[in-house]
Amino acid sequence: MDCDDIVFRHEMPAQLRWSDVDQFGHVNNSVYFQLFDMCKTKYVQEVVGMDTLKRVAIVVASIKADFFAPIFYPDEIVIQSKITHLGNKSFVIRQRAVNVRTKEVKCEGYTTMVTYDMEKKCSITIPDDFRAKVEEYEDMSEDRD
Amino acid sequence: MDCDDIVFRHEMPAQLRWSDVDQFGHVNNSVYFQLFDMCKTKYVQEVVGMDTLKRVAIVVASIKADFFAPIFYPDEIVIQSKITHLGNKSFVIRQRAVNVRTKEVKCEGYTTMVTYDMEKKCSITIPDDFRAKVEEYEDMSEDRD
Amino acid sequence: MDCDDIVFRHEMPAQLRWSDVDQFGHVNNSVYFQLFDMCKTKYVQEVVGMDTLKRVAIVVASIKADFFAPIFYPDEIVIQSKITHLGNKSFVIRQRAVNVRTKEVKCEGYTTMVTYDMEKKCSITIPDDFRAKVEEYEDMSEDRD
Amino acid sequence: MDCDDIVFRHEMPAQLRWSDVDQFGHVNNSVYFQLFDMCKTKYVQEVVGMDTLKRVAIVVASIKADFFAPIFYPDEIVIQSKITHLGNKSFVIRQRAVNVRTKEVKCEGYTTMVTYDMEKKCSITIPDDFRAKVEEYEDMSEDRD
Repeated sequence: MDCDDIVFRHEMPAQLRWSDVDQFGHVNNSVYFQLFDMCKTKYVQEVVGMDTLKRVAIVVASIKADFFAPIFYPDEIVIQSKITHLGNKSFVIRQRAVNVRTKEVKCEGYTTMVTYDMEKKCSITIPDDFRAKVEEYEDMSEDRD
Repeated sequence: MDCDDIVFRHEMPAQLRWSDVDQFGHVNNSVYFQLFDMCKTKYVQEVVGMDTLKRVAIVVASIKADFFAPIFYPDEIVIQSKITHLGNKSFVIRQRAVNVRTKEVKCEGYTTMVTYDMEKKCSITIPDDFRAKVEEYEDMSEDRD
Repeated sequence: MDCDDIVFRHEMPAQLRWSDVDQFGHVNNSVYFQLFDMCKTKYVQEVVGMDTLKRVAIVVASIKADFFAPIFYPDEIVIQSKITHLGNKSFVIRQRAVNVRTKEVKCEGYTTMVTYDMEKKCSITIPDDFRAKVEEYEDMSEDRD
Repeated sequence: MDCDDIVFRHEMPAQLRWSDVDQFGHVNNSVYFQLFDMCKTKYVQEVVGMDTLKRVAIVVASIKADFFAPIFYPDEIVIQSKITHLGNKSFVIRQRAVNVRTKEVKCEGYTTMVTYDMEKKCSITIPDDFRAKVEEYEDMSEDRD
């Protein structure tokens, strides 16, 4: 399903709720995005830090996700997150929902996010310390567009 | 189930979503409170008006709800709302989820809400114009605690 | 706020999501019921066991909840659950949302649940083994209505 | 933002809830997928019909969405839906969230769905009557992969 040997350094458990499940007994698609949201918020808080985040807002520009197999309640799930691309005013975070027991990748998504100035209401260049912290955490080489 | 001849002047349709439904095919309990929330927000906006609401926040203090029968997707539902009690710093709103076709009352709830000053972080007396508008709309006689 | 010395044997962490938070920065009221739901499902699975639960469904008849103080994201929250009353065909579960760090009780609720036969569509007497397991877990003396 | 002259025959209002809104006052991303879900369910029910849907389940394989501008509460929103591609065992539905007053397209998404046999747990060829009804509704010329 996904055979490349990418390493996700950031991983956290995602607790499922009874109310997440639809009529088929599957976790509803919209819930995956709540879980991805929760984990990318945590990622930037932990990796970039609150000091930097006070000066910049992050807005979702686009989402792409593939659903490989349904998640059933109460599967034990972790969400893996990795920033795979740092552009000039945007970056891409790749995320996976993985079954802890079977290691099966249930869903994989890519979210493009824009660094944004909430007051001036415009996108802004990714701050240097933001970029540096992500590059160090993800062990990235130069990658700008 | 509810035989008294109370009149609900405020009624609005509540659109159900596929994701509202749980494994039994029932609308999940937590969704009822989303619908009640949506409709009591609309009630105070329409009856009390935005001018008054700019000066006062409204905070939920307690909820009590009876579930008489499940709502199935895609039942057509309306939410009825009525302020039944105006206290000094709090008021009670009674709400019902009703099946449009069968007229069956699926759920009935009472929410106690407190008028609140978000900056000073304390409850405040219900403003006079707030009280007057509700009393007129609901055709209430004097009722203070 | 709650001074009695009740002991909650069942306690589990409830993970908050960014999407749980409303415009005021508060966890939305409807989310509390998702968390209570998740934890009472876990309670009956753990205490009563899946074998017994295959023969009986559990349906919510009524909910009563008091909201003492808002939950902010990302507060660390646990949900405490305790069955406080076993009737003939119904039981009551008392639950609390507690801030882990401050020990503050943010919300307390009582849910009345009915043991139900999904096929015959009627309430049924609480099975003896269900009752025995709860009485043992909660160290209850005789309490029937 | 989207200048092509595509015609969406299927359009329905999507009611927003107070609980849909996040800390920024924006409708949360995960809610868009609840609304898209609600409307594509309605689309297939209305266009394909319940008789055909009893013989085939529909499962989401992938989602792609671009968020052009935030939706604020209580914006009045419609969701437009159009099946743009009918493959052998899958089809693509294109959807838009549009502000009724300003006509602004807030979000546009493409969902790839697979026709599925829930019992045999495998994808199946799109039934002929399913295909015929969609082709007629959307006035499509031959388009198979």
